[in-house]
Amino acid sequence: MSDTSPSEISRLEKTLFRLQAQHACLAYAFEAIADRPGPVVELGLGLGRTFDHLRRHLRGREIFVFDRVNKAYEDCRPDPAHLFLGEIEETLPALGERLAGRVVLANSDLGSFDRELNRRVAAMSARLLPPVMAPGGIVMSDLPLELDGFEALPLPPGAREGRYYLYRRPS
Amino acid sequence: MSDTSPSEISRLEKTLFRLQAQHACLAYAFEAIADRPGPVVELGLGLGRTFDHLRRHLRGREIFVFDRVNKAYEDCRPDPAHLFLGEIEETLPALGERLAGRVVLANSDLGSFDRELNRRVAAMSARLLPPVMAPGGIVMSDLPLELDGFEALPLPPGAREGRYYLYRRPS
Ligand SMILES: C[S@@+](CC[C@H](N)C(=O)[O-])C[C@H]1O[C@@H](n2cnc3c(N)ncnc32)[C@H](O)[C@@H]1O
Ligand code: NI
Ligand code: NI
Repeated sequence: MSDTSPSEISRLEKTLFRLQAQHACLAYAFEAIADRPGPVVELGLGLGRTFDHLRRHLRGREIFVFDRVNKAYEDCRPDPAHLFLGEIEETLPALGERLAGRVVLANSDLGSFDRELNRRVAAMSARLLPPVMAPGGIVMSDLPLELDGFEALPLPPGAREGRYYLYRRPS
Repeated sequence: MSDTSPSEISRLEKTLFRLQAQHACLAYAFEAIADRPGPVVELGLGLGRTFDHLRRHLRGREIFVFDRVNKAYEDCRPDPAHLFLGEIEETLPALGERLAGRVVLANSDLGSFDRELNRRVAAMSARLLPPVMAPGGIVMSDLPLELDGFEALPLPPGAREGRYYLYRRPS
Protein backbone atom coordinates (compact mmCIF):
# COMPACT_ATOMS: atom_id res chain seq x y z
CA MET A 1 0.00 0.00 0.00
CA SER A 2 0.99 3.62 0.07
CA ASP A 3 -0.24 4.69 -3.23
CA THR A 4 -3.56 3.05 -3.88
CA SER A 5 -7.19 3.71 -3.03
CA PRO A 6 -8.97 1.29 -0.65
CA SER A 7 -10.74 -0.58 -3.44
CA GLU A 8 -7.38 -1.26 -5.04
CA ILE A 9 -5.55 -2.71 -2.07
CA SER A 10 -4.09 -6.15 -2.52
CA ARG A 11 -5.25 -9.36 -0.94
CA LEU A 12 -2.15 -9.21 1.26
CA GLU A 13 -3.15 -5.77 2.52
CA LYS A 14 -6.77 -6.78 3.04
CA THR A 15 -5.67 -9.51 5.40
CA LEU A 16 -2.98 -7.39 7.04
CA PHE A 17 -5.26 -4.40 7.66
CA ARG A 18 -8.03 -6.61 9.03
CA LEU A 19 -5.65 -8.33 11.47
CA GLN A 20 -4.14 -4.98 12.48
CA ALA A 21 -7.57 -3.51 13.20
CA GLN A 22 -8.70 -6.62 15.01
CA HIS A 23 -5.59 -6.64 17.17
CA ALA A 24 -6.06 -2.96 18.08
CA CYS A 25 -9.75 -3.51 18.90
CA LEU A 26 -8.84 -6.44 21.13
CA ALA A 27 -6.28 -4.35 23.03
CA TYR A 28 -8.94 -1.67 23.49
CA ALA A 29 -11.50 -4.22 24.65
CA PHE A 30 -9.14 -5.85 27.17
CA GLU A 31 -8.76 -2.46 28.87
CA ALA A 32 -12.44 -1.66 28.63
CA ILE A 33 -13.58 -4.86 30.34
CA ALA A 34 -10.73 -5.13 32.84
CA ASP A 35 -12.98 -4.18 35.76
CA ARG A 36 -16.11 -5.86 34.47
CA PRO A 37 -16.58 -9.50 35.41
CA GLY A 38 -18.37 -11.70 32.92
CA PRO A 39 -17.85 -14.18 30.11
CA VAL A 40 -16.50 -13.60 26.61
CA VAL A 41 -17.98 -14.92 23.38
CA GLU A 42 -16.16 -15.73 20.15
CA LEU A 43 -18.37 -16.29 17.11
CA GLY A 44 -16.26 -18.15 14.57
CA LEU A 45 -13.32 -20.22 15.82
CA GLY A 46 -11.66 -20.52 12.41
CA LEU A 47 -8.00 -21.44 12.84
CA GLY A 48 -8.18 -20.45 16.50
CA ARG A 49 -5.91 -17.39 16.20
CA THR A 50 -8.20 -14.97 17.97
CA PHE A 51 -9.23 -17.55 20.53
CA ASP A 52 -5.55 -18.07 21.34
CA HIS A 53 -5.14 -14.31 21.72
CA LEU A 54 -8.21 -14.02 23.94
CA ARG A 55 -7.21 -16.78 26.31
CA ARG A 56 -3.68 -15.42 26.73
CA HIS A 57 -4.92 -11.94 27.61
CA LEU A 58 -7.98 -12.92 29.59
CA ARG A 59 -6.70 -15.58 31.96
CA GLY A 60 -9.41 -16.87 34.21
CA ARG A 61 -12.30 -15.61 32.06
CA GLU A 62 -14.82 -18.01 30.65
CA ILE A 63 -14.60 -17.89 26.85
CA PHE A 64 -17.47 -19.45 24.91
CA VAL A 65 -16.58 -20.32 21.33
CA PHE A 66 -18.99 -21.06 18.50
CA ASP A 67 -18.38 -22.51 15.06
CA ARG A 68 -19.86 -24.97 12.64
CA VAL A 69 -16.67 -27.07 12.72
CA ASN A 70 -13.42 -27.32 14.64
CA LYS A 71 -10.66 -26.54 12.14
CA ALA A 72 -8.38 -24.81 14.63
CA TYR A 73 -4.66 -25.53 15.00
CA GLU A 74 -4.27 -28.30 17.52
CA ASP A 75 -2.78 -26.00 20.13
CA CYS A 76 -5.52 -23.37 19.65
CA ARG A 77 -8.56 -25.42 20.57
CA PRO A 78 -10.98 -24.50 23.34
CA ASP A 79 -11.76 -27.17 25.90
CA PRO A 80 -14.83 -29.15 24.78
CA ALA A 81 -17.01 -27.67 27.54
CA HIS A 82 -16.60 -24.20 25.99
CA LEU A 83 -16.74 -25.10 22.30
CA PHE A 84 -20.20 -25.18 20.77
CA LEU A 85 -20.25 -26.85 17.38
CA GLY A 86 -23.16 -26.39 14.99
CA GLU A 87 -25.12 -23.52 13.52
CA ILE A 88 -24.70 -20.45 15.76
CA GLU A 89 -28.35 -19.68 15.10
CA GLU A 90 -29.10 -22.73 17.26
CA THR A 91 -26.09 -23.12 19.54
CA LEU A 92 -25.97 -19.56 20.89
CA PRO A 93 -29.65 -19.19 21.87
CA ALA A 94 -29.48 -22.70 23.37
CA LEU A 95 -27.16 -21.37 26.07
CA GLY A 96 -29.98 -19.13 27.24
CA GLU A 97 -29.68 -18.18 30.88
CA ARG A 98 -25.99 -18.99 31.09
CA LEU A 99 -25.16 -15.97 28.96
CA ALA A 100 -28.22 -13.70 29.00
CA GLY A 101 -27.18 -10.12 29.78
CA ARG A 102 -23.76 -11.23 31.10
CA VAL A 103 -21.29 -11.12 28.19
CA VAL A 104 -18.72 -8.33 28.48
CA LEU A 105 -16.95 -8.93 25.15
CA ALA A 106 -18.13 -10.59 21.96
CA ASN A 107 -16.07 -10.98 18.80
CA SER A 108 -18.11 -11.74 15.71
CA ASP A 109 -15.72 -12.91 13.02
CA LEU A 110 -17.94 -14.69 10.53
CA GLY A 111 -17.28 -12.93 7.23
CA SER A 112 -16.18 -14.53 3.99
CA PHE A 113 -15.81 -13.35 0.42
CA ASP A 114 -19.48 -14.08 -0.23
CA ARG A 115 -21.40 -10.81 0.00
CA GLU A 116 -24.85 -12.28 0.28
CA LEU A 117 -23.70 -14.67 3.02
CA ASN A 118 -22.04 -11.75 4.82
CA ARG A 119 -25.33 -9.86 4.80
CA ARG A 120 -27.03 -12.85 6.39
CA VAL A 121 -24.43 -13.57 9.09
CA ALA A 122 -24.23 -9.87 10.01
CA ALA A 123 -28.02 -9.83 10.46
CA MET A 124 -27.78 -12.97 12.58
CA SER A 125 -25.07 -11.53 14.89
CA ALA A 126 -27.02 -8.28 15.21
CA ARG A 127 -30.07 -10.27 16.29
CA LEU A 128 -28.42 -12.83 18.61
CA LEU A 129 -25.83 -10.71 20.41
CA PRO A 130 -27.89 -7.98 22.13
CA PRO A 131 -29.76 -10.45 24.39
CA VAL A 132 -26.51 -11.87 25.76
CA MET A 133 -24.56 -8.62 26.18
CA ALA A 134 -24.03 -6.97 29.57
CA PRO A 135 -24.35 -3.22 30.12
CA GLY A 136 -21.00 -1.70 29.12
CA GLY A 137 -20.28 -4.77 26.98
CA ILE A 138 -18.17 -4.51 23.84
CA VAL A 139 -18.98 -6.06 20.49
CA MET A 140 -16.24 -6.32 17.85
CA SER A 141 -17.02 -7.50 14.36
CA ASP A 142 -15.38 -8.07 10.99
CA LEU A 143 -18.66 -6.95 9.38
CA PRO A 144 -20.69 -3.82 10.20
CA LEU A 145 -23.59 -4.72 12.53
CA GLU A 146 -26.84 -2.90 13.17
CA LEU A 147 -26.97 -3.38 16.92
CA ASP A 148 -30.02 -1.84 18.56
CA GLY A 149 -29.12 0.26 21.59
CA PHE A 150 -25.36 0.12 21.00
CA GLU A 151 -23.06 2.98 20.09
CA ALA A 152 -20.51 2.61 17.29
CA LEU A 153 -17.02 3.49 18.53
CA PRO A 154 -14.18 4.93 16.44
CA LEU A 155 -11.39 2.42 15.93
CA PRO A 156 -8.36 2.71 18.23
CA PRO A 157 -5.07 4.15 16.91
CA GLY A 158 -3.24 1.76 14.61
CA ALA A 159 -6.46 0.49 13.05
CA ARG A 160 -7.72 1.71 9.68
CA GLU A 161 -11.42 2.70 9.72
CA GLY A 162 -13.67 0.16 8.03
CA ARG A 163 -11.32 -2.80 8.53
CA TYR A 164 -13.07 -3.92 11.73
CA TYR A 165 -16.06 -2.60 13.69
CA LEU A 166 -16.43 -1.74 17.35
CA TYR A 167 -19.64 -1.23 19.37
CA ARG A 168 -20.49 -0.65 23.00
CA ARG A 169 -23.67 -1.05 24.98
CA PRO A 170 -24.00 1.98 27.26
CA SER A 171 -23.70 0.99 30.91
CA MET B 1 0.74 -8.19 22.45
CA SER B 2 2.15 -5.47 24.64
CA ASP B 3 3.06 -7.37 27.65
CA THR B 4 4.46 -10.68 26.57
CA SER B 5 7.81 -12.02 25.45
CA PRO B 6 8.20 -13.20 21.83
CA SER B 7 7.83 -16.88 22.66
CA GLU B 8 4.53 -16.08 24.31
CA ILE B 9 2.89 -14.17 21.52
CA SER B 10 -0.43 -15.46 20.30
CA ARG B 11 -1.16 -17.13 17.01
CA LEU B 12 -2.98 -13.95 15.96
CA GLU B 13 0.16 -11.93 16.60
CA LYS B 14 2.42 -14.43 14.86
CA THR B 15 0.40 -14.04 11.69
CA LEU B 16 0.00 -10.28 12.09
CA PHE B 17 3.70 -9.65 12.71
CA ARG B 18 4.72 -11.86 9.80
CA LEU B 19 2.37 -10.05 7.40
CA GLN B 20 3.50 -6.67 8.73
CA ALA B 21 7.16 -7.54 8.21
CA GLN B 22 6.49 -9.04 4.81
CA HIS B 23 4.57 -5.95 3.71
CA ALA B 24 7.38 -3.64 4.88
CA CYS B 25 10.02 -5.76 3.14
CA LEU B 26 8.00 -5.68 -0.07
CA ALA B 27 7.74 -1.88 0.07
CA TYR B 28 11.49 -1.71 0.59
CA ALA B 29 12.13 -4.09 -2.28
CA PHE B 30 9.86 -2.21 -4.71
CA GLU B 31 12.02 0.89 -4.16
CA ALA B 32 15.25 -1.03 -4.31
CA ILE B 33 14.53 -2.62 -7.68
CA ALA B 34 12.73 0.34 -9.25
CA ASP B 35 15.63 1.12 -11.58
CA ARG B 36 16.71 -2.47 -12.13
CA PRO B 37 15.05 -4.32 -14.97
CA GLY B 38 14.55 -8.05 -14.55
CA PRO B 39 12.02 -10.66 -13.52
CA VAL B 40 10.60 -11.44 -10.09
CA VAL B 41 10.23 -14.87 -8.48
CA GLU B 42 7.64 -15.98 -5.94
CA LEU B 43 8.35 -19.32 -4.25
CA GLY B 44 5.08 -20.50 -2.72
CA LEU B 45 1.87 -19.19 -4.27
CA GLY B 46 -0.30 -20.29 -1.35
CA LEU B 47 -3.54 -18.30 -1.39
CA GLY B 48 -2.01 -15.83 -3.83
CA ARG B 49 -1.96 -12.88 -1.43
CA THR B 50 1.64 -11.91 -2.05
CA PHE B 51 1.38 -12.60 -5.76
CA ASP B 52 -1.58 -10.20 -5.88
CA HIS B 53 0.49 -7.59 -4.06
CA LEU B 54 3.48 -8.09 -6.35
CA ARG B 55 1.52 -7.76 -9.57
CA ARG B 56 -0.24 -4.58 -8.40
CA HIS B 57 3.02 -2.88 -7.48
CA LEU B 58 5.17 -4.22 -10.27
CA ARG B 59 3.07 -3.64 -13.37
CA GLY B 60 4.81 -4.79 -16.49
CA ARG B 61 7.33 -7.01 -14.70
CA GLU B 62 7.48 -10.70 -15.40
CA ILE B 63 6.58 -12.59 -12.21
CA PHE B 64 7.40 -16.31 -12.12
CA VAL B 65 5.43 -18.21 -9.49
CA PHE B 66 6.20 -21.66 -8.11
CA ASP B 67 4.11 -24.01 -6.02
CA ARG B 68 3.24 -27.66 -5.74
CA VAL B 69 -0.43 -26.85 -6.22
CA ASN B 70 -2.64 -23.96 -7.22
CA LYS B 71 -4.79 -23.21 -4.20
CA ALA B 72 -4.95 -19.45 -4.75
CA TYR B 73 -8.14 -17.40 -4.64
CA GLU B 74 -9.61 -17.37 -8.11
CA ASP B 75 -8.79 -13.71 -8.64
CA CYS B 76 -5.19 -14.14 -7.42
CA ARG B 77 -3.93 -16.67 -9.95
CA PRO B 78 -0.95 -16.09 -12.21
CA ASP B 79 -1.46 -16.68 -15.92
CA PRO B 80 -0.58 -20.30 -16.76
CA ALA B 81 2.58 -19.28 -18.63
CA HIS B 82 4.05 -17.90 -15.39
CA LEU B 83 2.84 -20.52 -12.93
CA PHE B 84 5.11 -23.53 -12.49
CA LEU B 85 3.39 -26.35 -10.68
CA GLY B 86 5.38 -29.16 -9.09
CA GLU B 87 8.32 -29.51 -6.74
CA ILE B 88 10.35 -26.30 -6.77
CA GLU B 89 13.47 -28.43 -6.63
CA GLU B 90 12.61 -29.45 -10.19
CA THR B 91 10.58 -26.58 -11.62
CA LEU B 92 12.95 -23.74 -10.74
CA PRO B 93 16.19 -25.23 -12.12
CA ALA B 94 14.24 -26.32 -15.21
CA LEU B 95 13.85 -22.67 -16.18
CA GLY B 96 17.61 -22.49 -16.51
CA GLU B 97 18.76 -19.76 -18.87
CA ARG B 98 15.48 -17.85 -18.71
CA LEU B 99 16.24 -16.79 -15.14
CA ALA B 100 19.97 -17.34 -14.58
CA GLY B 101 21.52 -14.24 -13.02
CA ARG B 102 18.53 -12.06 -13.99
CA VAL B 103 16.10 -12.09 -11.03
CA VAL B 104 15.93 -8.75 -9.19
CA LEU B 105 13.49 -9.84 -6.45
CA ALA B 106 12.70 -13.26 -5.02
CA ASN B 107 10.22 -13.96 -2.23
CA SER B 108 10.65 -17.34 -0.59
CA ASP B 109 7.52 -18.03 1.43
CA LEU B 110 7.58 -21.77 1.97
CA GLY B 111 7.40 -22.12 5.73
CA SER B 112 4.90 -24.17 7.70
CA PHE B 113 4.60 -25.24 11.31
CA ASP B 114 6.83 -28.23 10.66
CA ARG B 115 10.33 -27.42 11.87
CA GLU B 116 12.14 -30.19 10.10
CA LEU B 117 10.40 -29.36 6.83
CA ASN B 118 11.30 -25.70 7.34
CA ARG B 119 14.95 -26.62 7.70
CA ARG B 120 14.77 -28.48 4.41
CA VAL B 121 12.92 -25.83 2.38
CA ALA B 122 15.23 -23.12 3.71
CA ALA B 123 18.24 -25.15 2.57
CA MET B 124 16.58 -25.63 -0.80
CA SER B 125 15.91 -21.90 -1.30
CA ALA B 126 19.44 -21.06 -0.21
CA ARG B 127 20.78 -23.46 -2.82
CA LEU B 128 18.45 -22.65 -5.74
CA LEU B 129 18.16 -18.87 -5.49
CA PRO B 130 21.77 -17.63 -5.82
CA PRO B 131 22.18 -18.94 -9.40
CA VAL B 132 19.11 -17.03 -10.60
CA MET B 133 19.68 -13.74 -8.75
CA ALA B 134 21.02 -10.63 -10.47
CA PRO B 135 23.68 -8.37 -8.91
CA GLY B 136 21.85 -6.01 -6.55
CA GLY B 137 18.98 -8.48 -6.36
CA ILE B 138 16.84 -8.77 -3.21
CA VAL B 139 15.79 -12.01 -1.53
CA MET B 140 13.00 -11.91 1.04
CA SER B 141 12.11 -14.99 3.06
CA ASP B 142 9.80 -16.16 5.82
CA LEU B 143 12.65 -18.39 7.02
CA PRO B 144 16.27 -17.40 7.65
CA LEU B 145 18.44 -18.40 4.67
CA GLU B 146 22.17 -19.01 4.44
CA LEU B 147 22.77 -17.30 1.11
CA ASP B 148 26.39 -17.38 -0.02
CA GLY B 149 27.62 -13.97 -1.12
CA PHE B 150 24.55 -12.08 0.08
CA GLU B 151 24.36 -9.54 2.87
CA ALA B 152 21.60 -9.74 5.46
CA LEU B 153 19.74 -6.42 5.70
CA PRO B 154 18.03 -5.01 8.78
CA LEU B 155 14.25 -5.01 8.41
CA PRO B 156 12.63 -1.73 7.34
CA PRO B 157 10.74 0.40 9.91
CA GLY B 158 7.40 -1.10 10.86
CA ALA B 159 8.72 -4.65 10.75
CA ARG B 160 9.73 -6.56 13.86
CA GLU B 161 13.15 -8.26 13.59
CA GLY B 162 12.93 -12.00 13.08
CA ARG B 163 9.44 -11.98 11.57
CA TYR B 164 10.75 -11.96 8.00
CA TYR B 165 14.24 -11.97 6.48
CA LEU B 166 15.83 -9.69 3.91
CA TYR B 167 19.02 -10.25 1.87
CA ARG B 168 20.80 -8.46 -0.93
CA ARG B 169 23.40 -9.54 -3.43
CA PRO B 170 25.98 -6.75 -3.69
CA SER B 171 25.93 -5.11 -7.11
C1 LIG C 1 2.91 -20.12 3.20
S1 LIG C 1 2.33 -20.68 1.67
C2 LIG C 1 2.70 -19.31 0.62
C3 LIG C 1 1.87 -18.08 0.93
C4 LIG C 1 1.84 -17.06 -0.19
N1 LIG C 1 3.15 -16.47 -0.42
C5 LIG C 1 0.81 -15.97 0.10
O1 LIG C 1 1.19 -14.84 0.37
O2 LIG C 1 -0.40 -16.26 0.04
C6 LIG C 1 3.55 -21.90 1.26
C7 LIG C 1 3.33 -22.60 -0.06
O3 LIG C 1 4.54 -23.23 -0.45
C8 LIG C 1 4.26 -24.43 -1.14
N2 LIG C 1 5.47 -25.28 -1.04
C9 LIG C 1 6.19 -25.55 0.07
N3 LIG C 1 7.26 -26.31 -0.22
C10 LIG C 1 7.23 -26.51 -1.56
C11 LIG C 1 8.07 -27.21 -2.47
N4 LIG C 1 9.16 -27.88 -2.04
N5 LIG C 1 7.73 -27.22 -3.79
C12 LIG C 1 6.62 -26.57 -4.21
N6 LIG C 1 5.80 -25.88 -3.40
C13 LIG C 1 6.09 -25.86 -2.10
C14 LIG C 1 3.02 -24.98 -0.45
O4 LIG C 1 2.27 -25.78 -1.33
C15 LIG C 1 2.28 -23.69 -0.03
O5 LIG C 1 1.25 -23.37 -0.93
NI1 NI D 1 0.58 -0.35 -1.84
NI1 NI E 1 -0.35 -8.92 23.93
